[in-house]
Amino acid sequence: MGVSPGIGHGPAYVLTVSVPEPPEGATYTGEADQEKERAMAALRQVAGELEARGNRAGGEAAEILKAQALMAEDPGLIVKVRTLIDRGLAAPRATFEAFTKYRDVLAGSGGYLGERAADLNDIRDRVIALLYGQAMPGLRGAPAEPYVLVARDLAPADTALLSKGEIAAFVTEEGGPTSHTAILARAMGVPAVVACRGATTIPSGVRVMADGTSGDVRVEPDESDVADAVSAATARQAALSSARGPGRTADGHPVPLLANVGGPAELEAAVAAGAEGIGLYRSEFLFLDRAEPPSLEEQTRAYRAAVEAFPGGRVVVRTLDGGADKPLAFLPAAASAEPNPALGERGLRRLRRFPEVMDAQLAAVAAVASEDLHVMAPMVATGEEAGWFARACRATRLPHVGVMIEIPSAALRARDLLASVDFVSIGTNDLAQYAFAADRQLGAVSALQDPWQPALLDLVAMAASAAGEAGKPCGVCGESAADPAMACVLVGLGASTLSMGAGALAAVRAALAAHTLAQCRLAADAARARTTPADARAAARAHLPALGRLGL
Amino acid sequence: MGVSPGIGHGPAYVLTVSVPEPPEGATYTGEADQEKERAMAALRQVAGELEARGNRAGGEAAEILKAQALMAEDPGLIVKVRTLIDRGLAAPRATFEAFTKYRDVLAGSGGYLGERAADLNDIRDRVIALLYGQAMPGLRGAPAEPYVLVARDLAPADTALLSKGEIAAFVTEEGGPTSHTAILARAMGVPAVVACRGATTIPSGVRVMADGTSGDVRVEPDESDVADAVSAATARQAALSSARGPGRTADGHPVPLLANVGGPAELEAAVAAGAEGIGLYRSEFLFLDRAEPPSLEEQTRAYRAAVEAFPGGRVVVRTLDGGADKPLAFLPAAASAEPNPALGERGLRRLRRFPEVMDAQLAAVAAVASEDLHVMAPMVATGEEAGWFARACRATRLPHVGVMIEIPSAALRARDLLASVDFVSIGTNDLAQYAFAADRQLGAVSALQDPWQPALLDLVAMAASAAGEAGKPCGVCGESAADPAMACVLVGLGASTLSMGAGALAAVRAALAAHTLAQCRLAADAARARTTPADARAAARAHLPALGRLGL
Repeated sequence: MGVSPGIGHGPAYVLTVSVPEPPEGATYTGEADQEKERAMAALRQVAGELEARGNRAGGEAAEILKAQALMAEDPGLIVKVRTLIDRGLAAPRATFEAFTKYRDVLAGSGGYLGERAADLNDIRDRVIALLYGQAMPGLRGAPAEPYVLVARDLAPADTALLSKGEIAAFVTEEGGPTSHTAILARAMGVPAVVACRGATTIPSGVRVMADGTSGDVRVEPDESDVADAVSAATARQAALSSARGPGRTADGHPVPLLANVGGPAELEAAVAAGAEGIGLYRSEFLFLDRAEPPSLEEQTRAYRAAVEAFPGGRVVVRTLDGGADKPLAFLPAAASAEPNPALGERGLRRLRRFPEVMDAQLAAVAAVASEDLHVMAPMVATGEEAGWFARACRATRLPHVGVMIEIPSAALRARDLLASVDFVSIGTNDLAQYAFAADRQLGAVSALQDPWQPALLDLVAMAASAAGEAGKPCGVCGESAADPAMACVLVGLGASTLSMGAGALAAVRAALAAHTLAQCRLAADAARARTTPADARAAARAHLPALGRLGL
Repeated sequence: MGVSPGIGHGPAYVLTVSVPEPPEGATYTGEADQEKERAMAALRQVAGELEARGNRAGGEAAEILKAQALMAEDPGLIVKVRTLIDRGLAAPRATFEAFTKYRDVLAGSGGYLGERAADLNDIRDRVIALLYGQAMPGLRGAPAEPYVLVARDLAPADTALLSKGEIAAFVTEEGGPTSHTAILARAMGVPAVVACRGATTIPSGVRVMADGTSGDVRVEPDESDVADAVSAATARQAALSSARGPGRTADGHPVPLLANVGGPAELEAAVAAGAEGIGLYRSEFLFLDRAEPPSLEEQTRAYRAAVEAFPGGRVVVRTLDGGADKPLAFLPAAASAEPNPALGERGLRRLRRFPEVMDAQLAAVAAVASEDLHVMAPMVATGEEAGWFARACRATRLPHVGVMIEIPSAALRARDLLASVDFVSIGTNDLAQYAFAADRQLGAVSALQDPWQPALLDLVAMAASAAGEAGKPCGVCGESAADPAMACVLVGLGASTLSMGAGALAAVRAALAAHTLAQCRLAADAARARTTPADARAAARAHLPALGRLGL
């Protein structure tokens, strides 16, 4: 699965884990207090190095590494390590057991925390390596020329300090379009392919070409294949930069192109890429990893900054999407362990249990007092839920109230939801996850996450036509809007705005500008008439002839 | 939520957990070996008692308790307890820590294993009570007259030995229609209400009436209310027993009424209840808790016994529905922990990775060589998957090949699935779980699991009309078929057969016999025209006038 576009070519450099498990029951000589101090010093050092690495990297990587550094100094983990040393275990073994136990609990609880489990492994290995005086896990002896970095999965610490000049592409066996690898690769502008089974069996040094658009990975490609792929990619860049201005089809049908933004650090890139506003402003950054909820002033400041970044453009704030997989320190945990957090009490369901959190957020949005500010709720399943949210928003006198359509029932019954809200926005990633019962984090079922699955297009069509009948806007803010061919299909299905990562805006703008609304509709109809994703994609592209010319 | 029908009335008896946590760091005097033997003896005794209790109870409870007894002697747990005693912890504390740790891992991994976590707590508390010389947790001092047993959740060991004469009803705060409490209550014929928040705040001794059909629980009801409810229930029984013979509407439209069967022990009850065949024969009982897969002969024997129990009636075997939440000892575990097992590699997805298991099962079905034997695959999302399964079945020359429709995409695209199979069968429980992104095991989201949700009816209508257009049968084998009013609606939507727990057959047979196909269709249309489950149910019932007379 290609998750960051472009062609990368170079020798493979396969990253393998090399920190051994300290022997079970390993003990120490000397005093317990000394052994504890040794462990504490190593944890502090690793935390400091991760944070320093994050500060050097900046941007999104800095946030991720800072969070990881905090985990290395988690008080619960430290107590556990000290207790195990008191029971006679040597510092490396105590570290190993404490982290592994915590990791198992996290991995089991899934979702956002599941990703954190991989981060814990990385910290553990670094601490153990330090205690043993071994080399840190990570990149060592990498080729001097730009290389294709191949791994089972990549820790943010491994990738944060790499520069675009060193790396030709990333290829990992695990991960999906929302994994850390994918996010960082897109932020760096480096091609990346994830969920590539067997990739780590490629011998280091063998030449590999990775196509981050199609997801193709070729071992020992012909020189001519590489040249063709690279020249196609270059032509693509040139063609893309020709389209400018607001999003519209070739015949002038306007399709505002908006950015998905995860926090204030991403505003600048969205403006630079020509976004006409923010179609999905994720508000979680204000709430995660905090003991107290943010103040009214802090929230208002953040929302106002977003509005000011896009004069005259809309900004759609999504209310807090918390749940068992994104726990909030200032709210009690869910009553009992959720066996499937993605099917649990998350999004609006959780806000209904803690309405004071939502009310505070709505008050902060209202305090900005901008006609451009929209608000929408995540994880809405029924008209009744949409009505509850809309009433709360109207009570705060918010002008534009919407809901996400990311649950199949919401798409099937979009008319019921639209009875009480002003707009809807389709989240294709979660919608696909539920429509196909296929975890978006799980490589083994990623084929069912293909946005070209005809059943997913059916659900988008149902939601968009319900919105059309109601005379209300229907946006798409899932990752599928970032695929230029799919963007045309979504417009053909009736989407009125598209929101995506800033990096995808140029290609989508060019694709829309090169086709008429009628072509988009024909492409949509052709795709829905097929039964497999590959056929649907091919059928749609047959009606979108300029994509080939644009190298898209 | 009512999960086992009938009216129960009597004094509340509230079960609360009373085994305390052994103090942290508790140590022992004496020798480590003696302390270990003390722990081992307690584990053995608890295992023995659970198994003996299961043997006395028989039936479904015996299976459940036998599995629980095996957990008490799990080698991994025993090693852990011994290790903790070696480190100086007293037997009760060592037991507490070992079980709690294992339980946390299980609870996190969710699903089937999540339920096992509650079983582990029960074993742990029994072992600790035994080591402390305390009374066993469980029922003690229960009223002499039939009582309403109220608890947060019930362990199978608590309920297995209760008889219908002692218990008026079960009311629990946790659980859903497929929890152990619900299954055992239906098997015992005792009314039960689950997911009843705050139930354990009812004081013991206060009179309670529980309606296992509507889910109503009333504290200190009027004598006249109780009399009315009981006489309505009695009238209902009398009315129900008047309908006989094969399922059909009042105007003679045949609707074969089939049983959902989980193993050979349930065949007799299905025959006694007048089932016309088996609409869902779950084959997991042949595979779970085994080191080796069952032999061809064992499988063939089981399938043949089912066919012979229903001469001339169909028997639909569902191929193995295994996955991360129903691990099979003879297959490797999933490659990595699944954060959401319900969205993971289960059902047909898992069989595709281990086709030898499926091929052996298909060979066993073929060996029965019966025209009445049907086979269908679970967890099918796309036409491509249905085609793969159908090809494997055709290669074994099986005459009737079908797929479950329990994923929204399969309902949306039923036509694509029907292109390669002979029939479909809708599993409404999983279909609702995915359509509303609401875990069927989670009480907090059970309102979204309501089978009267209009969006769920939309999906059933899509699948049934696709089958009608293809001229192929569409059954329903989810729990919603067991609700008499819903059964009429399902027939109105186009379901050609209904399959349910044997206990529900009489009521559904009576409801269908009292209404015409036209009435069923009007009821279905009226339900789909509404926007909430309550309105949909009321609108449907308005077109099904005989339900009231039948007390349904």
